[in-house]
Amino acid sequence: MLATAALRPAPAEPATGVAAIRRQIRAGVLSGHTAGLAPRHVQGNVVILPAEEAHDFLLFCQRNPKPCPLLAVSAPGETALPTLGADIDIRTDLPRYRIWRDGALVEEPASIGGHWRSDLVTFVIGCSFSFEQALIDAGIPLRHIERGLNVAMYRTSVATEPAGRFHGPLVVSMRPFTPANAIRAIQITSRFGAVHGAPIHLGKPELLGIADLGRPDYGDAIAVADDELPVFWACGVTPQAVVAAARPAFCITHAPGCMLLTDRLNHELASS
Amino acid sequence: MLATAALRPAPAEPATGVAAIRRQIRAGVLSGHTAGLAPRHVQGNVVILPAEEAHDFLLFCQRNPKPCPLLAVSAPGETALPTLGADIDIRTDLPRYRIWRDGALVEEPASIGGHWRSDLVTFVIGCSFSFEQALIDAGIPLRHIERGLNVAMYRTSVATEPAGRFHGPLVVSMRPFTPANAIRAIQITSRFGAVHGAPIHLGKPELLGIADLGRPDYGDAIAVADDELPVFWACGVTPQAVVAAARPAFCITHAPGCMLLTDRLNHELASS
Repeated sequence: MLATAALRPAPAEPATGVAAIRRQIRAGVLSGHTAGLAPRHVQGNVVILPAEEAHDFLLFCQRNPKPCPLLAVSAPGETALPTLGADIDIRTDLPRYRIWRDGALVEEPASIGGHWRSDLVTFVIGCSFSFEQALIDAGIPLRHIERGLNVAMYRTSVATEPAGRFHGPLVVSMRPFTPANAIRAIQITSRFGAVHGAPIHLGKPELLGIADLGRPDYGDAIAVADDELPVFWACGVTPQAVVAAARPAFCITHAPGCMLLTDRLNHELASS
Repeated sequence: MLATAALRPAPAEPATGVAAIRRQIRAGVLSGHTAGLAPRHVQGNVVILPAEEAHDFLLFCQRNPKPCPLLAVSAPGETALPTLGADIDIRTDLPRYRIWRDGALVEEPASIGGHWRSDLVTFVIGCSFSFEQALIDAGIPLRHIERGLNVAMYRTSVATEPAGRFHGPLVVSMRPFTPANAIRAIQITSRFGAVHGAPIHLGKPELLGIADLGRPDYGDAIAVADDELPVFWACGVTPQAVVAAARPAFCITHAPGCMLLTDRLNHELASS
Protein backbone atom coordinates (compact mmCIF):
# COMPACT_ATOMS: atom_id res chain seq x y z
CA MET A 1 0.00 0.00 0.00
CA LEU A 2 2.78 2.40 0.86
CA ALA A 3 4.51 1.83 -2.46
CA THR A 4 1.30 2.52 -4.38
CA ALA A 5 0.49 5.56 -2.30
CA ALA A 6 3.99 6.95 -2.82
CA LEU A 7 3.36 7.01 -6.56
CA ARG A 8 0.40 9.32 -6.14
CA PRO A 9 1.17 13.04 -6.21
CA ALA A 10 0.00 14.86 -3.10
CA PRO A 11 -2.81 17.18 -4.25
CA ALA A 12 -1.78 20.26 -2.31
CA GLU A 13 1.97 19.80 -1.83
CA PRO A 14 4.01 18.08 -4.51
CA ALA A 15 6.98 16.09 -3.17
CA THR A 16 9.28 18.86 -4.30
CA GLY A 17 7.50 21.12 -1.78
CA VAL A 18 8.53 19.28 1.36
CA ALA A 19 12.04 18.70 0.02
CA ALA A 20 12.33 22.44 -0.61
CA ILE A 21 11.21 23.20 2.97
CA ARG A 22 13.76 20.69 4.26
CA ARG A 23 16.49 22.41 2.23
CA GLN A 24 15.51 25.75 3.81
CA ILE A 25 15.77 24.15 7.26
CA ARG A 26 19.15 22.69 6.29
CA ALA A 27 20.35 26.13 5.17
CA GLY A 28 19.15 27.75 8.39
CA VAL A 29 16.56 29.87 6.55
CA LEU A 30 13.79 28.16 8.54
CA SER A 31 14.81 27.73 12.17
CA GLY A 32 11.56 27.65 14.19
CA HIS A 33 8.91 25.08 15.00
CA THR A 34 7.79 22.72 12.27
CA ALA A 35 4.09 22.59 13.27
CA GLY A 36 2.01 23.70 10.29
CA LEU A 37 4.86 23.30 7.76
CA ALA A 38 3.75 20.87 5.02
CA PRO A 39 0.72 19.75 7.05
CA ARG A 40 -0.05 16.82 4.73
CA HIS A 41 3.39 15.33 5.43
CA VAL A 42 4.43 13.04 8.28
CA GLN A 43 6.67 14.65 10.90
CA GLY A 44 8.75 12.60 13.32
CA ASN A 45 10.20 12.81 16.82
CA VAL A 46 13.93 12.02 16.79
CA VAL A 47 16.10 10.16 19.31
CA ILE A 48 19.75 9.43 18.46
CA LEU A 49 21.66 7.03 20.71
CA PRO A 50 25.01 5.21 20.63
CA ALA A 51 24.76 1.67 19.29
CA GLU A 52 25.39 0.20 22.75
CA GLU A 53 22.12 1.75 23.98
CA ALA A 54 20.23 1.21 20.74
CA HIS A 55 19.16 -2.38 21.27
CA ASP A 56 17.49 -1.68 24.60
CA PHE A 57 15.79 1.44 23.24
CA LEU A 58 14.58 -0.49 20.19
CA LEU A 59 13.22 -3.14 22.55
CA PHE A 60 11.54 -0.42 24.62
CA CYS A 61 9.78 0.87 21.49
CA GLN A 62 8.78 -2.66 20.48
CA ARG A 63 7.28 -3.23 23.92
CA ASN A 64 5.50 0.14 24.03
CA PRO A 65 4.21 0.70 20.51
CA LYS A 66 1.40 3.10 21.50
CA PRO A 67 3.72 5.83 22.89
CA CYS A 68 6.70 4.82 20.67
CA PRO A 69 5.48 4.06 17.14
CA LEU A 70 8.70 3.68 15.14
CA LEU A 71 8.72 5.12 11.64
CA ALA A 72 12.39 4.33 10.92
CA VAL A 73 15.64 3.17 12.57
CA SER A 74 18.99 3.82 10.89
CA ALA A 75 22.07 1.61 10.75
CA PRO A 76 24.87 2.79 13.10
CA GLY A 77 26.52 5.89 11.65
CA GLU A 78 24.03 6.16 8.79
CA THR A 79 22.96 9.79 8.26
CA ALA A 80 20.35 9.10 5.56
CA LEU A 81 16.80 7.84 6.18
CA PRO A 82 15.85 6.71 2.68
CA THR A 83 12.45 5.26 3.66
CA LEU A 84 11.39 8.68 4.96
CA GLY A 85 12.87 10.94 2.27
CA ALA A 86 15.23 10.68 -0.66
CA ASP A 87 17.65 13.37 0.46
CA ILE A 88 17.38 13.43 4.28
CA ASP A 89 20.58 14.10 6.23
CA ILE A 90 19.75 13.70 9.91
CA ARG A 91 22.74 15.91 10.87
CA THR A 92 21.25 19.05 9.31
CA ASP A 93 17.55 18.57 8.60
CA LEU A 94 15.98 19.51 11.93
CA PRO A 95 15.65 23.21 12.79
CA ARG A 96 17.19 22.61 16.21
CA TYR A 97 18.62 19.73 18.24
CA ARG A 98 19.33 19.01 21.89
CA ILE A 99 22.61 17.42 22.97
CA TRP A 100 22.49 15.47 26.23
CA ARG A 101 25.46 14.17 28.26
CA ASP A 102 24.80 11.96 31.28
CA GLY A 103 21.20 13.15 31.24
CA ALA A 104 22.05 16.86 31.26
CA LEU A 105 21.11 19.18 28.41
CA VAL A 106 24.42 20.70 27.27
CA GLU A 107 23.69 22.40 23.93
CA GLU A 108 20.90 23.29 21.48
CA PRO A 109 22.62 23.48 18.09
CA ALA A 110 21.05 23.97 14.65
CA SER A 111 23.07 21.09 13.23
CA ILE A 112 24.94 18.12 14.73
CA GLY A 113 27.72 17.50 12.19
CA GLY A 114 30.31 18.31 14.85
CA HIS A 115 28.79 15.74 17.22
CA TRP A 116 28.33 12.95 14.70
CA ARG A 117 29.84 9.54 15.45
CA SER A 118 29.98 6.32 13.49
CA ASP A 119 28.15 4.44 16.26
CA LEU A 120 25.03 6.69 16.40
CA VAL A 121 21.65 5.11 15.65
CA THR A 122 18.73 7.36 14.70
CA PHE A 123 15.17 6.52 15.79
CA VAL A 124 12.28 8.40 14.16
CA ILE A 125 9.02 8.08 16.10
CA GLY A 126 5.57 8.96 14.78
CA CYS A 127 3.85 12.07 16.04
CA SER A 128 0.26 13.05 16.69
CA PHE A 129 0.37 15.78 14.03
CA SER A 130 -0.49 13.05 11.50
CA PHE A 131 -3.69 11.91 13.18
CA GLU A 132 -4.61 15.48 14.13
CA GLN A 133 -4.60 16.36 10.43
CA ALA A 134 -6.95 13.43 9.79
CA LEU A 135 -9.28 14.69 12.54
CA ILE A 136 -9.26 18.22 11.13
CA ASP A 137 -9.91 16.84 7.63
CA ALA A 138 -12.93 15.03 9.11
CA GLY A 139 -14.29 18.30 10.46
CA ILE A 140 -13.52 17.55 14.13
CA PRO A 141 -12.32 20.70 15.87
CA LEU A 142 -9.12 20.57 17.96
CA ARG A 143 -9.28 23.25 20.61
CA HIS A 144 -5.54 23.59 21.28
CA ILE A 145 -4.89 24.22 17.58
CA GLU A 146 -7.80 26.65 17.29
CA ARG A 147 -6.37 28.60 20.23
CA GLY A 148 -2.73 28.38 19.14
CA LEU A 149 -1.72 26.39 22.22
CA ASN A 150 0.31 23.25 22.75
CA VAL A 151 -1.63 20.09 23.49
CA ALA A 152 -2.01 19.31 27.23
CA MET A 153 0.19 16.39 28.36
CA TYR A 154 0.27 14.45 31.64
CA ARG A 155 2.55 11.93 33.32
CA THR A 156 0.30 9.05 34.36
CA SER A 157 0.37 6.35 37.04
CA VAL A 158 0.56 3.78 34.21
CA ALA A 159 4.07 2.28 33.89
CA THR A 160 5.55 1.56 30.49
CA GLU A 161 6.97 -1.91 29.87
CA PRO A 162 10.67 -1.51 30.72
CA ALA A 163 13.64 -2.61 28.58
CA GLY A 164 17.13 -2.47 30.08
CA ARG A 165 17.68 0.98 31.58
CA PHE A 166 14.67 2.45 29.81
CA HIS A 167 11.57 2.67 31.99
CA GLY A 168 9.16 5.27 33.33
CA PRO A 169 5.56 6.40 33.31
CA LEU A 170 3.36 6.62 30.26
CA VAL A 171 2.84 10.25 29.20
CA VAL A 172 -0.50 11.02 27.53
CA SER A 173 -1.87 13.92 25.53
CA MET A 174 -5.45 15.04 26.15
CA ARG A 175 -7.96 16.50 23.72
CA PRO A 176 -11.55 17.37 24.74
CA PHE A 177 -14.41 16.23 22.49
CA THR A 178 -18.16 15.96 22.61
CA PRO A 179 -19.20 12.29 23.02
CA ALA A 180 -20.14 12.04 19.32
CA ASN A 181 -16.80 13.51 18.23
CA ALA A 182 -14.95 11.27 20.73
CA ILE A 183 -16.48 8.24 18.99
CA ARG A 184 -15.49 9.62 15.56
CA ALA A 185 -11.98 10.41 16.83
CA ILE A 186 -11.59 6.80 18.06
CA GLN A 187 -12.73 5.48 14.68
CA ILE A 188 -10.41 7.78 12.74
CA THR A 189 -7.27 7.41 14.86
CA SER A 190 -7.68 3.63 15.05
CA ARG A 191 -6.49 3.65 11.42
CA PHE A 192 -3.27 5.46 12.40
CA GLY A 193 -1.37 2.81 14.36
CA ALA A 194 1.92 4.26 13.07
CA VAL A 195 1.26 7.53 14.92
CA HIS A 196 -0.08 6.48 18.35
CA GLY A 197 -3.31 4.98 16.99
CA ALA A 198 -6.54 4.87 19.00
CA PRO A 199 -6.82 6.62 22.37
CA ILE A 200 -5.79 4.60 25.40
CA HIS A 201 -8.42 6.11 27.68
CA LEU A 202 -11.30 8.53 27.90
CA GLY A 203 -13.58 10.09 30.43
CA LYS A 204 -11.97 9.16 33.77
CA PRO A 205 -8.63 10.97 34.27
CA GLU A 206 -8.42 9.78 37.89
CA LEU A 207 -7.99 6.20 36.63
CA LEU A 208 -4.74 7.34 35.00
CA GLY A 209 -3.59 9.01 38.21
CA ILE A 210 -4.32 12.50 36.84
CA ALA A 211 -5.62 14.53 39.79
CA ASP A 212 -6.19 17.87 38.04
CA LEU A 213 -6.72 18.25 34.28
CA GLY A 214 -6.10 21.97 34.72
CA ARG A 215 -2.43 21.35 35.59
CA PRO A 216 -0.73 19.46 32.76
CA ASP A 217 2.88 18.30 33.23
CA TYR A 218 3.78 19.49 29.70
CA GLY A 219 2.08 21.81 27.23
CA ASP A 220 -0.84 24.10 27.95
CA ALA A 221 -4.00 23.59 30.01
CA ILE A 222 -7.06 23.12 27.79
CA ALA A 223 -10.54 23.48 29.31
CA VAL A 224 -12.94 20.53 29.08
CA ALA A 225 -16.55 21.77 28.76
CA ASP A 226 -19.47 20.19 30.62
CA ASP A 227 -20.71 18.49 27.46
CA GLU A 228 -17.27 17.08 26.61
CA LEU A 229 -15.11 14.13 27.58
CA PRO A 230 -11.32 14.26 27.95
CA VAL A 231 -9.80 11.78 25.49
CA PHE A 232 -6.25 10.53 26.11
CA TRP A 233 -3.66 9.30 23.61
CA ALA A 234 -0.25 7.76 24.34
CA CYS A 235 2.24 10.56 23.68
CA GLY A 236 5.65 10.82 22.03
CA VAL A 237 6.92 12.70 25.07
CA THR A 238 6.98 9.27 26.78
CA PRO A 239 10.20 8.11 25.05
CA GLN A 240 11.75 11.58 25.46
CA ALA A 241 11.09 11.46 29.21
CA VAL A 242 12.26 7.84 29.45
CA VAL A 243 15.54 8.64 27.68
CA ALA A 244 16.09 11.71 29.88
CA ALA A 245 15.51 9.61 33.02
CA ALA A 246 17.85 6.85 31.79
CA ARG A 247 20.70 9.42 31.58
CA PRO A 248 22.70 7.78 28.80
CA ALA A 249 26.29 9.01 28.50
CA PHE A 250 25.42 10.63 25.16
CA CYS A 251 22.17 11.32 23.36
CA ILE A 252 20.75 13.71 20.75
CA THR A 253 17.05 14.54 20.38
CA HIS A 254 15.04 17.09 18.42
CA ALA A 255 14.42 20.32 20.33
CA PRO A 256 10.74 20.55 21.35
CA GLY A 257 8.59 21.39 18.34
CA CYS A 258 11.51 21.05 15.89
CA MET A 259 10.65 17.80 14.17
CA LEU A 260 11.85 15.93 11.10
CA LEU A 261 9.77 16.65 7.99
CA THR A 262 9.46 13.54 5.83
CA ASP A 263 8.37 12.86 2.26
CA ARG A 264 5.71 10.48 3.55
CA LEU A 265 2.10 11.63 3.46
CA ASN A 266 -0.13 11.31 6.52
CA HIS A 267 -2.78 9.43 4.55
CA GLU A 268 -0.23 6.74 3.63
CA LEU A 269 -0.11 5.80 7.32
CA ALA A 270 -3.82 5.00 7.52
CA SER A 271 -4.69 1.32 7.49
CA SER A 272 -7.44 0.50 5.03
CA MET B 1 -17.88 -10.36 0.32
CA LEU B 2 -21.20 -11.85 1.40
CA ALA B 3 -21.22 -14.32 -1.46
CA THR B 4 -17.73 -15.52 -0.59
CA ALA B 5 -18.47 -15.71 3.10
CA ALA B 6 -21.65 -17.69 2.45
CA LEU B 7 -19.54 -20.40 0.81
CA ARG B 8 -17.55 -20.93 4.00
CA PRO B 9 -18.99 -23.46 6.45
CA ALA B 10 -19.59 -21.98 9.90
CA PRO B 11 -17.13 -23.75 12.22
CA ALA B 12 -19.50 -24.40 15.10
CA GLU B 13 -22.92 -24.51 13.43
CA PRO B 14 -23.25 -25.84 9.90
CA ALA B 15 -26.02 -24.18 7.88
CA THR B 16 -28.17 -27.24 8.43
CA GLY B 17 -28.09 -26.40 12.16
CA VAL B 18 -29.91 -23.10 11.98
CA ALA B 19 -32.38 -24.45 9.41
CA ALA B 20 -33.15 -27.32 11.77
CA ILE B 21 -33.78 -24.89 14.63
CA ARG B 22 -36.04 -22.84 12.36
CA ARG B 23 -38.00 -26.00 11.47
CA GLN B 24 -38.48 -26.72 15.20
CA ILE B 25 -39.80 -23.18 15.66
CA ARG B 26 -42.10 -23.66 12.65
CA ALA B 27 -43.41 -26.91 14.17
CA GLY B 28 -44.01 -25.27 17.55
CA VAL B 29 -41.37 -27.47 19.26
CA LEU B 30 -39.41 -24.32 20.16
CA SER B 31 -41.71 -21.54 21.30
CA GLY B 32 -39.64 -19.31 23.61
CA HIS B 33 -37.07 -16.55 23.21
CA THR B 34 -34.46 -16.91 20.49
CA ALA B 35 -31.56 -15.34 22.45
CA GLY B 36 -28.73 -17.87 22.61
CA LEU B 37 -30.13 -20.07 19.82
CA ALA B 38 -27.52 -20.38 17.05
CA PRO B 39 -25.42 -17.54 18.50
CA ARG B 40 -23.19 -17.29 15.42
CA HIS B 41 -26.21 -16.52 13.24
CA VAL B 42 -27.83 -13.16 12.58
CA GLN B 43 -31.22 -12.64 14.21
CA GLY B 44 -33.65 -9.96 13.04
CA ASN B 45 -36.42 -7.76 14.40
CA VAL B 46 -39.54 -8.04 12.24
CA VAL B 47 -42.11 -5.40 11.24
CA ILE B 48 -44.85 -6.32 8.74
CA LEU B 49 -46.98 -3.50 7.30
CA PRO B 50 -49.53 -3.09 4.52
CA ALA B 51 -48.03 -1.82 1.27
CA GLU B 52 -49.70 1.57 1.68
CA GLU B 53 -47.62 2.18 4.84
CA ALA B 54 -44.50 0.45 3.54
CA HIS B 55 -43.02 3.32 1.57
CA ASP B 56 -43.05 5.71 4.51
CA PHE B 57 -41.63 3.09 6.85
CA LEU B 58 -38.89 2.24 4.34
CA LEU B 59 -38.12 5.96 4.12
CA PHE B 60 -38.05 6.14 7.92
CA CYS B 61 -35.46 3.34 8.00
CA GLN B 62 -33.42 4.99 5.25
CA ARG B 63 -33.39 8.23 7.22
CA ASN B 64 -32.55 6.55 10.55
CA PRO B 65 -30.08 3.81 9.68
CA LYS B 66 -28.49 3.60 13.14
CA PRO B 67 -31.69 2.48 14.96
CA CYS B 68 -33.22 0.85 11.83
CA PRO B 69 -30.52 -1.09 9.93
CA LEU B 70 -32.49 -2.99 7.28
CA LEU B 71 -31.37 -6.53 6.55
CA ALA B 72 -34.16 -7.33 4.08
CA VAL B 73 -37.47 -6.00 2.72
CA SER B 74 -39.90 -8.34 0.95
CA ALA B 75 -42.12 -7.67 -2.06
CA PRO B 76 -45.81 -7.22 -1.13
CA GLY B 77 -47.34 -10.57 -0.24
CA GLU B 78 -44.01 -12.39 -0.47
CA THR B 79 -43.58 -14.86 2.42
CA ALA B 80 -40.02 -15.93 1.60
CA LEU B 81 -36.86 -13.96 2.45
CA PRO B 82 -34.34 -15.69 0.20
CA THR B 83 -31.42 -13.37 1.02
CA LEU B 84 -31.73 -14.32 4.70
CA GLY B 85 -32.40 -18.06 4.39
CA ALA B 86 -33.26 -20.57 1.69
CA ASP B 87 -36.42 -21.91 3.30
CA ILE B 88 -37.75 -19.02 5.42
CA ASP B 89 -41.53 -18.62 5.60
CA ILE B 90 -42.22 -15.43 7.54
CA ARG B 91 -45.74 -16.68 8.44
CA THR B 92 -44.44 -19.52 10.61
CA ASP B 93 -40.75 -19.03 11.43
CA LEU B 94 -40.92 -16.79 14.51
CA PRO B 95 -41.76 -18.40 17.86
CA ARG B 96 -44.41 -15.76 18.52
CA TYR B 97 -45.91 -12.71 16.81
CA ARG B 98 -47.89 -9.66 17.85
CA ILE B 99 -50.91 -8.50 15.85
CA TRP B 100 -51.74 -4.80 16.11
CA ARG B 101 -54.94 -3.07 14.95
CA ASP B 102 -55.14 0.73 15.12
CA GLY B 103 -52.17 0.68 17.50
CA ALA B 104 -53.72 -1.82 19.93
CA LEU B 105 -52.20 -5.24 20.60
CA VAL B 106 -54.98 -7.69 19.79
CA GLU B 107 -53.32 -11.13 19.63
CA GLU B 108 -50.03 -12.97 20.20
CA PRO B 109 -50.21 -15.98 17.89
CA ALA B 110 -47.49 -18.56 17.14
CA SER B 111 -48.11 -18.23 13.39
CA ILE B 112 -49.75 -15.63 11.17
CA GLY B 113 -51.02 -17.72 8.26
CA GLY B 114 -54.60 -16.73 9.13
CA HIS B 115 -53.69 -13.03 9.07
CA TRP B 116 -51.66 -13.07 5.87
CA ARG B 117 -52.58 -10.65 3.08
CA SER B 118 -51.25 -10.15 -0.40
CA ASP B 119 -50.34 -6.53 0.38
CA LEU B 120 -48.13 -7.19 3.42
CA VAL B 121 -44.48 -6.09 3.26
CA THR B 122 -41.96 -7.64 5.68
CA PHE B 123 -39.09 -5.58 7.08
CA VAL B 124 -36.24 -7.39 8.85
CA ILE B 125 -34.08 -5.09 10.96
CA GLY B 126 -30.64 -5.95 12.37
CA CYS B 127 -30.28 -6.59 16.08
CA SER B 128 -27.56 -5.99 18.63
CA PHE B 129 -27.13 -9.73 19.27
CA SER B 130 -24.77 -9.75 16.26
CA PHE B 131 -22.37 -7.12 17.59
CA GLU B 132 -22.67 -8.44 21.15
CA GLN B 133 -21.36 -11.78 19.91
CA ALA B 134 -18.39 -9.96 18.33
CA LEU B 135 -17.71 -8.20 21.65
CA ILE B 136 -17.88 -11.48 23.58
CA ASP B 137 -15.59 -13.12 21.02
CA ALA B 138 -13.13 -10.26 21.65
CA GLY B 139 -13.13 -11.02 25.38
CA ILE B 140 -15.17 -7.95 26.36
CA PRO B 141 -17.61 -8.83 29.16
CA LEU B 142 -21.27 -7.83 28.80
CA ARG B 143 -22.77 -7.49 32.25
CA HIS B 144 -26.44 -7.94 31.30
CA ILE B 145 -25.63 -11.24 29.62
CA GLU B 146 -23.42 -12.41 32.50
CA ARG B 147 -26.29 -11.70 34.89
CA GLY B 148 -29.04 -13.13 32.68
CA LEU B 149 -30.79 -9.76 32.34
CA ASN B 150 -32.17 -7.81 29.40
CA VAL B 151 -30.09 -4.88 28.21
CA ALA B 152 -31.14 -1.50 29.69
CA MET B 153 -32.95 0.73 27.17
CA TYR B 154 -33.96 4.39 27.38
CA ARG B 155 -36.17 6.77 25.40
CA THR B 156 -33.99 9.81 24.69
CA SER B 157 -34.59 13.49 24.00
CA VAL B 158 -33.09 12.94 20.54
CA ALA B 159 -35.76 12.93 17.81
CA THR B 160 -35.54 10.53 14.90
CA GLU B 161 -35.84 11.94 11.39
CA PRO B 162 -39.56 11.58 10.61
CA ALA B 163 -41.08 10.06 7.45
CA GLY B 164 -44.81 10.41 6.88
CA ARG B 165 -46.64 9.28 10.01
CA PHE B 166 -43.55 7.62 11.45
CA HIS B 167 -41.74 9.75 14.03
CA GLY B 168 -40.66 9.60 17.66
CA PRO B 169 -37.70 9.61 19.99
CA LEU B 170 -34.54 7.62 19.50
CA VAL B 171 -34.38 4.66 21.89
CA VAL B 172 -30.90 3.59 22.99
CA SER B 173 -29.45 0.55 24.71
CA MET B 174 -26.75 1.04 27.35
CA ARG B 175 -23.82 -1.18 28.22
CA PRO B 176 -21.22 -0.23 30.88
CA PHE B 177 -17.53 -0.64 30.04
CA THR B 178 -14.17 0.38 31.44
CA PRO B 179 -12.67 3.19 29.31
CA ALA B 180 -10.27 0.76 27.59
CA ASN B 181 -13.11 -1.66 26.77
CA ALA B 182 -15.30 1.24 25.62
CA ILE B 183 -12.61 2.14 23.06
CA ARG B 184 -12.37 -1.51 21.93
CA ALA B 185 -16.17 -1.75 21.74
CA ILE B 186 -16.29 1.34 19.51
CA GLN B 187 -13.62 -0.15 17.24
CA ILE B 188 -15.36 -3.52 17.02
CA THR B 189 -18.95 -2.33 16.55
CA SER B 190 -17.89 0.27 13.97
CA ARG B 191 -17.46 -2.71 11.62
CA PHE B 192 -21.10 -3.76 12.17
CA GLY B 193 -23.05 -1.01 10.41
CA ALA B 194 -25.73 -3.55 9.47
CA VAL B 195 -26.59 -4.09 13.15
CA HIS B 196 -26.58 -0.57 14.69
CA GLY B 197 -22.83 -0.01 14.19
CA ALA B 198 -20.77 2.23 16.46
CA PRO B 199 -22.26 3.73 19.63
CA ILE B 200 -23.99 7.07 19.24
CA HIS B 201 -22.90 8.38 22.63
CA LEU B 202 -20.93 7.62 25.76
CA GLY B 203 -20.25 9.01 29.17
CA LYS B 204 -22.87 11.78 29.53
CA PRO B 205 -26.41 10.35 29.77
CA GLU B 206 -27.83 13.78 30.65
CA LEU B 207 -26.97 14.98 27.13
CA LEU B 208 -29.43 12.38 25.81
CA GLY B 209 -32.10 13.52 28.26
CA ILE B 210 -31.61 10.46 30.47
CA ALA B 211 -32.09 11.66 34.05
CA ASP B 212 -31.54 8.37 35.89
CA LEU B 213 -29.61 5.43 34.46
CA GLY B 214 -31.10 3.29 37.23
CA ARG B 215 -34.59 3.60 35.71
CA PRO B 216 -34.55 2.30 32.13
CA ASP B 217 -37.71 2.66 30.01
CA TYR B 218 -37.32 -0.91 28.71
CA GLY B 219 -35.29 -3.91 29.89
CA ASP B 220 -33.46 -4.19 33.20
CA ALA B 221 -31.37 -1.68 35.17
CA ILE B 222 -27.63 -2.44 34.92
CA ALA B 223 -25.25 -0.81 37.42
CA VAL B 224 -22.39 1.34 36.06
CA ALA B 225 -19.32 1.05 38.32
CA ASP B 226 -17.15 4.04 39.28
CA ASP B 227 -14.42 2.97 36.87
CA GLU B 228 -16.84 2.51 33.98
CA LEU B 229 -18.56 4.66 31.36
CA PRO B 230 -22.10 4.08 30.10
CA VAL B 231 -21.94 3.47 26.33
CA PHE B 232 -25.10 3.99 24.25
CA TRP B 233 -26.13 2.36 20.99
CA ALA B 234 -29.14 3.16 18.80
CA CYS B 235 -31.65 0.41 19.54
CA GLY B 236 -34.07 -1.67 17.48
CA VAL B 237 -36.83 -0.81 19.93
CA THR B 238 -36.87 2.60 18.20
CA PRO B 239 -38.79 1.40 15.11
CA GLN B 240 -41.06 -0.78 17.28
CA ALA B 241 -41.99 2.25 19.39
CA VAL B 242 -42.37 4.46 16.32
CA VAL B 243 -44.72 1.96 14.64
CA ALA B 244 -46.75 1.58 17.85
CA ALA B 245 -47.08 5.38 18.13
CA ALA B 246 -48.09 5.72 14.45
CA ARG B 247 -51.05 3.37 15.08
CA PRO B 248 -51.34 1.91 11.59
CA ALA B 249 -54.68 0.20 10.87
CA PHE B 250 -52.88 -3.16 10.72
CA CYS B 251 -49.40 -4.30 11.66
CA ILE B 252 -47.57 -7.47 12.70
CA THR B 253 -44.30 -7.54 14.68
CA HIS B 254 -42.25 -10.21 16.42
CA ALA B 255 -43.16 -10.67 20.09
CA PRO B 256 -40.37 -9.31 22.32
CA GLY B 257 -37.38 -11.67 22.29
CA CYS B 258 -38.90 -13.88 19.57
CA MET B 259 -36.77 -12.96 16.60
CA LEU B 260 -36.18 -14.33 13.10
CA LEU B 261 -33.20 -16.72 12.91
CA THR B 262 -31.39 -16.33 9.60
CA ASP B 263 -28.81 -18.36 7.69
CA ARG B 264 -26.49 -15.36 7.67
CA LEU B 265 -23.49 -15.42 9.99
CA ASN B 266 -22.70 -12.46 12.24
CA HIS B 267 -19.15 -12.24 10.90
CA GLU B 268 -20.48 -11.77 7.36
CA LEU B 269 -21.91 -8.43 8.50
CA ALA B 270 -18.52 -7.03 9.54
CA SER B 271 -16.98 -4.58 7.11
CA SER B 272 -13.36 -5.36 6.37
